Amino acid sequence: MNVLIVHAHPEPKSFTAALRDQAVETLQAQGHQVRVSDLYAMNWNPVASAEDFCVRENPEYLVYALEQRRNSKEQTLAADIQQELDKLLWADLLILNFPIYWFSTPAILKGWIDRVLVSGICYGGKRFYDQGGLSGKKALVTVTLGGREHMFGEEAIHGPLEDMLRPLLRGTLAYVGLEVLPPFVGWHVPYISAEDRQAFLLSYRQRLENIEAHEPIQYPRLSQFDDRLYPLQPITL
Amino acid sequence: MNVLIVHAHPEPKSFTAALRDQAVETLQAQGHQVRVSDLYAMNWNPVASAEDFCVRENPEYLVYALEQRRNSKEQTLAADIQQELDKLLWADLLILNFPIYWFSTPAILKGWIDRVLVSGICYGGKRFYDQGGLSGKKALVTVTLGGREHMFGEEAIHGPLEDMLRPLLRGTLAYVGLEVLPPFVGWHVPYISAEDRQAFLLSYRQRLENIEAHEPIQYPRLSQFDDRLYPLQPITL
Repeated sequence: MNVLIVHAHPEPKSFTAALRDQAVETLQAQGHQVRVSDLYAMNWNPVASAEDFCVRENPEYLVYALEQRRNSKEQTLAADIQQELDKLLWADLLILNFPIYWFSTPAILKGWIDRVLVSGICYGGKRFYDQGGLSGKKALVTVTLGGREHMFGEEAIHGPLEDMLRPLLRGTLAYVGLEVLPPFVGWHVPYISAEDRQAFLLSYRQRLENIEAHEPIQYPRLSQFDDRLYPLQPITL
Repeated sequence: MNVLIVHAHPEPKSFTAALRDQAVETLQAQGHQVRVSDLYAMNWNPVASAEDFCVRENPEYLVYALEQRRNSKEQTLAADIQQELDKLLWADLLILNFPIYWFSTPAILKGWIDRVLVSGICYGGKRFYDQGGLSGKKALVTVTLGGREHMFGEEAIHGPLEDMLRPLLRGTLAYVGLEVLPPFVGWHVPYISAEDRQAFLLSYRQRLENIEAHEPIQYPRLSQFDDRLYPLQPITL
């Protein structure tokens, strides 16, 4: 497989960076090709703006997705976006590797999503969920957080972590057609011992060694809905 | 009331900007004080980094929340953060006004959240949810999106919009103690007529004229949990 790891942490010596390195090492040892986008090291610009487009469908009024459609078609996206998009299209597996900030991605990574998952290529019209532009590829979210595992779950204080990550797992990754694997979670990371961190790294290595065998999370399929996207029969999603 | 509107849209003539202007006008007419942070116009930096801190608890290894705690206490946060934090602490009502990007905030606004909602003031230790540092204040999320209303709901293709917005409504705004009002949603905005847009503006005005009467969404209270944050009795949250 070709694997793209998008890494976003402001501290180069962080445990999140150790997870990134563990992934590179493990996946390469399995014969996979691995590329890393280290967003802080790249000084990635996360702000979606008119400057992202070399030509304009409408120079007077910016509809971001509309300009994405035209500029991705004509290959006139800003160079930093095109470079990341090329890596994404090359990859069979996308790993997003980050510390949870406010139950979601750090802004620098949100801006990678906003700018790189371009309309026209990654999705558009009825091309989303299982029909999304990146279908056939997989995604894994690898996160660290301060919270403890018992704070998440059906009756826990924050509810299930997967529910907090819903706009990312379902609304972003599954939306563009990726098969979303269950997240890998490093709990309570700022407060645990070096031994417990090693245990997380080992568990991550084992997870990655079997990555091709893992079942993705189930999400809606467009065939469950009519042309206007009303459900064909009662379902719970 | 003192009202802070944080606005994030790359197009100054956008309908989202019209909603901002409607809010300013309506709230001022009711005698409220209103300030606006227009993040694109301010060229707001959304990237959390070591540069956000004038002093360091640990200059060798960045734990962002830890440095927030020390620097907010000593008033040594970067000037752009301190300025926004002062506005936030002045406000009785925070309005986040933005177009939905990937079922969440644009990165520039996510970076306002990451950098301004500082540990030590807005939350910390057991000071979260109803015990959060901003308790007593209210929050309203005002969004525009491309999707149609029937695409959201229990059996709809994307599920309930409130579930997609969960990390923002519950994991961020309710987490820091804000009373979160039901979101105001402008559906299908890029595709609707000028008349339909006017109808949204009117409906928003009516909503804002009654803002003090609205009931907040119910979220967990710390008194439902023990000292280790295990639930005291079975609950569904």
